[in-house]
Amino acid sequence: MARWEPGAPERLQKAALELFATRGFEQTTATEIAQSVGLTERTFFRHFSDKREVLFYGQHQFAQAFLAGVDTAPPGATPIEIVACALQSAAAFFPKERRPYSRTRQSVIDQNPALQERERHKLASLAATLADALRARGVDELAATLAAQTGVTVFGIAFTQWIREGEQRSLADIAAEVLRQLLTLTATATTSEMIP
Amino acid sequence: MARWEPGAPERLQKAALELFATRGFEQTTATEIAQSVGLTERTFFRHFSDKREVLFYGQHQFAQAFLAGVDTAPPGATPIEIVACALQSAAAFFPKERRPYSRTRQSVIDQNPALQERERHKLASLAATLADALRARGVDELAATLAAQTGVTVFGIAFTQWIREGEQRSLADIAAEVLRQLLTLTATATTSEMIP
Repeated sequence: MARWEPGAPERLQKAALELFATRGFEQTTATEIAQSVGLTERTFFRHFSDKREVLFYGQHQFAQAFLAGVDTAPPGATPIEIVACALQSAAAFFPKERRPYSRTRQSVIDQNPALQERERHKLASLAATLADALRARGVDELAATLAAQTGVTVFGIAFTQWIREGEQRSLADIAAEVLRQLLTLTATATTSEMIP
Repeated sequence: MARWEPGAPERLQKAALELFATRGFEQTTATEIAQSVGLTERTFFRHFSDKREVLFYGQHQFAQAFLAGVDTAPPGATPIEIVACALQSAAAFFPKERRPYSRTRQSVIDQNPALQERERHKLASLAATLADALRARGVDELAATLAAQTGVTVFGIAFTQWIREGEQRSLADIAAEVLRQLLTLTATATTSEMIP
């Protein structure tokens, strides 16, 4: 039977990011990642289905943070208000201390198409999960899909801004501002005759 | 020197879709696709970088349809109005006759993770292209990104509805309705105290 390794996923994730950032994702094997923290390849694959997945450890808790935010919205909240609550909750998942880690992680992802694909997949899953949670609150099909997609779009844009060099604001503040900007943008179009 | 094959990409695409739909994507090789229309594997790879790409032939023209729509928007149009024009132009790329083809194609994509990844990549590229076109019209960075992402989200939702069995409306009509729904959704939130 396999030995239980306390904190193994976290150690592997940290080691993987360091190796990916210095040597490159393609040039680093799962075995090397495992060995760098005194673990075996077998332990690596017990925790992660492939080499890409190691950078997405914690994704489940991230999705849960969105859902926890949905639950904090009062009964009468509109779909966008629910999404606003979800964004604030998800943003709390990324405290200031995490910014350097998130920045390095994103630069590794941005340099590798396979990692970008995995990231897009995770975001698509997140949007689907969020839409399900909205539907469970009685939001109709189309509104749930639109609001959930909007939430994930706003989060993505806010996150990109949050990890920029020199950015000082919290992710929660940036997300709120991006959402506000979207509302302003759409508000100017509601009475437009150009929209059929 | 390679012989020029008139209409080879279109023939390969049509044959590929038939084979993928009947046998499955994984079970079909590029050679089989080529041979089924009397062409060689070499001809296949002259037109497509890999087996997935054959289902995305025409993607460039699709993106161009979006951009052509951006150009039809009058000088004073707001970002969302420009996106509305882009959506109408892109929708015209999918006439009624194309619906059965699009439906089969999507069911093949939905059954294969590798094809889903490629599709998400194409949509992300489309959003980036659209955002560039908005910026080129003087729309600021954040508004361009938000409006472009919104446009691609609306298109995706409308397209999913358009290929549903029994759906009779045109893609242009559905896209306009989805955009209107989004505007209604966001309009109720602009004065919300729940959005920080």
